[in-house]
Amino acid sequence: MIDEEILLVLKSSNDGYVSGEELSKTAGLSRAAIWKRVESLRNEGYDIEASPHLGYRLLGVPDSLIPSEIKWSLKTRTLGREVISYKKIDSTNTAAYDMAKKGIKEGVVVVADEQTKGRGRLGRTWASPARGGVYLSCILRPAMSPGEVPKLTLAASISVAKTIREVSGLTAVIKWPNDVLINSKKVSGILLEMKAEQDRLDFVIIGIGINVNTPLKLLPKIGTSIAGELGEEISRIKLTQVLLENLEANYRLVTNGDFSKVIDEWKDLTDMLGSRIRITLPNREFEGQAIDVDSDGTLLVRLDNGFIEKIFSGDVRLLR
Amino acid sequence: MIDEEILLVLKSSNDGYVSGEELSKTAGLSRAAIWKRVESLRNEGYDIEASPHLGYRLLGVPDSLIPSEIKWSLKTRTLGREVISYKKIDSTNTAAYDMAKKGIKEGVVVVADEQTKGRGRLGRTWASPARGGVYLSCILRPAMSPGEVPKLTLAASISVAKTIREVSGLTAVIKWPNDVLINSKKVSGILLEMKAEQDRLDFVIIGIGINVNTPLKLLPKIGTSIAGELGEEISRIKLTQVLLENLEANYRLVTNGDFSKVIDEWKDLTDMLGSRIRITLPNREFEGQAIDVDSDGTLLVRLDNGFIEKIFSGDVRLLR
Repeated sequence: MIDEEILLVLKSSNDGYVSGEELSKTAGLSRAAIWKRVESLRNEGYDIEASPHLGYRLLGVPDSLIPSEIKWSLKTRTLGREVISYKKIDSTNTAAYDMAKKGIKEGVVVVADEQTKGRGRLGRTWASPARGGVYLSCILRPAMSPGEVPKLTLAASISVAKTIREVSGLTAVIKWPNDVLINSKKVSGILLEMKAEQDRLDFVIIGIGINVNTPLKLLPKIGTSIAGELGEEISRIKLTQVLLENLEANYRLVTNGDFSKVIDEWKDLTDMLGSRIRITLPNREFEGQAIDVDSDGTLLVRLDNGFIEKIFSGDVRLLR
Repeated sequence: MIDEEILLVLKSSNDGYVSGEELSKTAGLSRAAIWKRVESLRNEGYDIEASPHLGYRLLGVPDSLIPSEIKWSLKTRTLGREVISYKKIDSTNTAAYDMAKKGIKEGVVVVADEQTKGRGRLGRTWASPARGGVYLSCILRPAMSPGEVPKLTLAASISVAKTIREVSGLTAVIKWPNDVLINSKKVSGILLEMKAEQDRLDFVIIGIGINVNTPLKLLPKIGTSIAGELGEEISRIKLTQVLLENLEANYRLVTNGDFSKVIDEWKDLTDMLGSRIRITLPNREFEGQAIDVDSDGTLLVRLDNGFIEKIFSGDVRLLR
């Protein structure tokens, strides 16, 4: 449990220093109690200087997915206004699903520093080592039908690619439907899960895993991390904030009926259209040219016989 | 717990009578133990004659949703091969959903004689009094995407209408998407609920409530029951069996790619096409003529300005 009140006072100070007396007054606690709380913040990784004359000063915050750090200066209306954080969990999607089933409200985000059972699409695993990843799940309750969920998949994938470009400058590209790649290696995966009736969603969980500062040796061969490509680490907190801001904006485009803007942005962020691809479906495999994304989020592929096939889901490999 | 072994022997007897000795031998129990089990079957509503000279004879079975009675002579491959029965439960759909989430296999059916929190579409309640209804939920795991679920809604509704016609002779008709009416009054409701990823279902629960022998005074004004329309009670067991058989057959049509047959049958079982209807959506209301059901299960409505609108979900009222 992070002492958000004391942090807020330290962060808001103009010259950096806040006297013990001032902290006592604001928090309504004894100076001994303040000292104890500062100690516990230090244990969480906060670098706090204590000067006998000047008072306390915040020198550094840990790059850990602490709710108060994520929420600090976060520019969203609902997404991430409540963050539930775990050092280690089986799967943030599983936890978020169970919370949503119990009625938790839209916008709550579950984050973890490590997943022991990280999951990907189609029952696959998602490597979620403790060092350097961001694993988060957003609980949303859009008024839409189950058939419209591919729109959210596209909205999530452009949010991830755009966020990586913004915070690292690296050219992240989208591979349909929802992988994000840097230099042809996978840096992020997205797993949407939902509970629904025949004609309306109860809730949808958008689960996103990003290899941010993850050492490459902890990742599968086809994977990479932002730090691995950039050569230096970046702030996981900052990335999480930008991601939530982008995701909220794109989510609103979908729910407000502006999905065409999502499609346009998706096309800007993929290098796939025009390319020759191989598509693997549960029951068959074929090649063709990826020509467009349709208004419902499906991929349009021109087969060698000239026919155009609409692809709802499947695994895609670029042949080039 | 019903003693299925003893019932099986009694039902299989040619002349009706089975000696206590024979029953003892088959079950590997003492004659005193057999007597005790027969008593417990009587308490469940079985009418069993015990003649000192001829032995035991089954004269009648209770019209209660007992798994062994449902399974007895049931002609399905998977659906209802396992039945979980409750005298009273909050909601069979809720129970089935939780079982499916824990991994229970396709085909399991949850039935109840009474629901205390019967649910309908869009958060509505479904009156589920103890006397005379059939409330059941089928656990299915089709390899399809969430957007295809409207196909299952149509398959379920034709199964219900056909079953009522077969067992009662009454002209049950379908009102899109999934109400079944007799003489313009609602006799059945269907609620599909699913857990899914973006591109595949994990499972879907098909929940069906039918007012079979329910006294009309226990039902809402707009509702009716089969017995209420027919003037006599029918076997709930028989209806349940025919329903499961029809549902399995139509489910296979959907999963085998023969959905056009489901649509054809749906058109035969509705009196709605060609009629003037009023459609209520969450955000608007309009009138038009119901002209067809599209290949994906959506309703096509011709508006007064000549435009044709595709309706995914909503409330429909026939105006005529």
